[in-house]
Amino acid sequence: MADPAELYEEPAERADDPDAHHRLVQELSGAASDQDASYARELLLEMHPADIADLIEQLAWEQQDQLARLAPDLFTGDVLAELAVDTRGDVVDALDPVHIAEALADLDSDDMTLVVEELDDEKRAAVLAAVSAEDRQYLERSLAFEEETAGRLMQREFVAAPQFWTVGDTIDHMRMAGEDLPDLFFEVFVIDEGFKPIGAVPVSKLMRSQRAVPLSEIMDPTKIIIRPEDDQEDAAYLFEKYHLISAPVVDDDGRLAGMLTVDDIVDVIQEENKEDMLALAGVNDAGQSDTVFSSVKARAPWLLVNLGTAVFASAIIALFDEAITQLVALAVLMPIVASMGGNAGTQSLAVAVRSIASRDLTMSNSMRVIWRELAAGAVNGVIFAIVMGIVAGLWFQDWALGGVIAISMVITLACAGLAGILVPLGLRRMGADPAVASSVFVTTVTDVVGFFVFLGLGALVLL
Amino acid sequence: MADPAELYEEPAERADDPDAHHRLVQELSGAASDQDASYARELLLEMHPADIADLIEQLAWEQQDQLARLAPDLFTGDVLAELAVDTRGDVVDALDPVHIAEALADLDSDDMTLVVEELDDEKRAAVLAAVSAEDRQYLERSLAFEEETAGRLMQREFVAAPQFWTVGDTIDHMRMAGEDLPDLFFEVFVIDEGFKPIGAVPVSKLMRSQRAVPLSEIMDPTKIIIRPEDDQEDAAYLFEKYHLISAPVVDDDGRLAGMLTVDDIVDVIQEENKEDMLALAGVNDAGQSDTVFSSVKARAPWLLVNLGTAVFASAIIALFDEAITQLVALAVLMPIVASMGGNAGTQSLAVAVRSIASRDLTMSNSMRVIWRELAAGAVNGVIFAIVMGIVAGLWFQDWALGGVIAISMVITLACAGLAGILVPLGLRRMGADPAVASSVFVTTVTDVVGFFVFLGLGALVLL
Repeated sequence: MADPAELYEEPAERADDPDAHHRLVQELSGAASDQDASYARELLLEMHPADIADLIEQLAWEQQDQLARLAPDLFTGDVLAELAVDTRGDVVDALDPVHIAEALADLDSDDMTLVVEELDDEKRAAVLAAVSAEDRQYLERSLAFEEETAGRLMQREFVAAPQFWTVGDTIDHMRMAGEDLPDLFFEVFVIDEGFKPIGAVPVSKLMRSQRAVPLSEIMDPTKIIIRPEDDQEDAAYLFEKYHLISAPVVDDDGRLAGMLTVDDIVDVIQEENKEDMLALAGVNDAGQSDTVFSSVKARAPWLLVNLGTAVFASAIIALFDEAITQLVALAVLMPIVASMGGNAGTQSLAVAVRSIASRDLTMSNSMRVIWRELAAGAVNGVIFAIVMGIVAGLWFQDWALGGVIAISMVITLACAGLAGILVPLGLRRMGADPAVASSVFVTTVTDVVGFFVFLGLGALVLL
Repeated sequence: MADPAELYEEPAERADDPDAHHRLVQELSGAASDQDASYARELLLEMHPADIADLIEQLAWEQQDQLARLAPDLFTGDVLAELAVDTRGDVVDALDPVHIAEALADLDSDDMTLVVEELDDEKRAAVLAAVSAEDRQYLERSLAFEEETAGRLMQREFVAAPQFWTVGDTIDHMRMAGEDLPDLFFEVFVIDEGFKPIGAVPVSKLMRSQRAVPLSEIMDPTKIIIRPEDDQEDAAYLFEKYHLISAPVVDDDGRLAGMLTVDDIVDVIQEENKEDMLALAGVNDAGQSDTVFSSVKARAPWLLVNLGTAVFASAIIALFDEAITQLVALAVLMPIVASMGGNAGTQSLAVAVRSIASRDLTMSNSMRVIWRELAAGAVNGVIFAIVMGIVAGLWFQDWALGGVIAISMVITLACAGLAGILVPLGLRRMGADPAVASSVFVTTVTDVVGFFVFLGLGALVLL
């Protein structure tokens, strides 16, 4: 048992000491480069798997590879399960299939899936051949589900009890079952004679109740049932909304087949949030791309699309080249209108994407929200029309020019607000992810409107 | 008990039927407008508080207000706790302090805090005067902590057992305690004679163990201890990293004072992600601003900053007005360079902000990541230099112009990659939030570099 006094001084996991962490990474990195397996083992001795995984993630790709070849025993099942998905993919490449199969034996079924789904086909076959027949059958069934579905996330270890059991029956059963139960569980699922989940009893409630009470009396009736083919994002939404700790997953016949638990859902939520944020910024890959090549690959496609739209916006400018030659102030000021439009559009877009993700933006309030975005854009347009009108008027000593930029600002910012909400709503209606690509569409709208209105009005009024 | 067959057909909560949901919102909205309290009650009868909260959030602000005045009984403690923070703030404004105090009585302590922290000073005093002395003392202590700290989130109901107790002692105690225990709990905290947490036993483990086993034998030693003044984001990170379900919170003397549970942490994670995403897009308010006024207020400040930097970038263009008059193609093409730079910078920034938030970007790998961003920017720069060089050369039949835009593209995109990582790292070093304001700084860099290099080179080479 740890000395509590010591824990109070400075619990290792809380110690926010970036220097110590940095030194540890340096030492581990040195051990990998020097091929010093025993020093690497010593460094990671008695650490929590999550901390070991954390340190390994900090190494460069080559060193992760070296370490996996040098000291595969460090990569226990728990450490593999804790690694970030990209690192896990790299590390399992370097590990022997037999080692991977052994590491899997310690894991709950959902964590086994996490590891195996990162293997390439050949290695996956070798690992599947080396695990127990039971695990193999489970893994094959799990991998048959699409990625990012509840089927991939679910755990087949769960505790179920028939509805006619009492609290006492259930407790006795659990004391007997021992090893076959999951390490941790929070609810006992109550099933009917067809193995269908009809309710759940939180373990804390079970523990508080008298032995003679039938489960059916104290259970909460099952309202949320997850199907293996459900998107993990939908499952996460249900957990979040109803504050679930675990939820039953049923097969095609409605029979209890597994459960989802909140700790896996926390990871899903983080993953989905990351995807949304990167998608909005035009980065494809959800993983943290660690190499220059993967970074370029994740970003070039959207830069190419952006180039296309930027050239299109330039073609608008080219329509007014005569006007610009006569009044160069138009060229000086036009990026301000476009920049403000782009910014206002991005603000509106981020609010919309977030509201869609949290399911706050629905059919019932979308008209109201569209109207609000248009109005907010127009109001900001008026505010900055006044400011920029004065700045431009003073700068170029030309109040007509100030008037032109002011009017353009109002029109562009109102369009920006509208585009920021209509583009993601439109993408959603077409069944696409509202975060992906929407910022390119929005800034195309704001650039085109901004340049066209400002230069067009300028040519009309000032020349 | 619900009929299981029916549940299998279409559990109400899973029914992804936006039309039915929309109709319900319409009906509720009609009931609020018509002052028909009994119809509103009928509509929401037997619904889960989370579903009721969800429907209320869909109403316009005025209707939420009407409904709260019309049928305050619909706003039970659970419904208030489930409401989104903005809606909760609006609704409690319309409710009577005595009603709020009654609603609080049903809640766990952490949910009480959620409601009370939304009240203005006057109403808060009235509500505090109406609750029980015990709750008042708790709430005053809780509200004394800063917003967004563990102290605000923690629940004072928990189960603790002295280390010398056996499994049997603990179970008997829980059966006796009944009402005083929290509704749901997942771990029993083991404490020493000074009331300091030294370990925890998951309830599922307790239930499986023989009655005679001492707790100290089966407990997991406490490694994570939260202090009330800890930032909720740091607490969430620990939950996520170590897959915690609950964690002890201690007071200044190290005595167990409360606990955090994973369901509250899920809300924190969503809130922090939302803040980051909106901050990156330059929206101040973390809540979903429902009115035009609050939307304008949340966005205008960053638009003003953006205007300043856009004017600055324009001043760079103004330096080259002679060159533009002589060669208008420079004005036509310059927004392309700036736009590509802004896009590449935003990509790099989003990846960096995300890595900082998930604590993957540390002292140990920051040099490597900076180098990667610079290189990725440069590689993308070369790719798009070639593409754009050819496009510009063909468009204006001027290969020198194509060369100038190509060189500018490489320099601008390399700077964009660098700015995208250095700006958030710099903000973090200065103790600021790396998401806030960073996109304005990054696009300022890319605009200034893009315009200056392209126009400068153009003036130098082409005229």
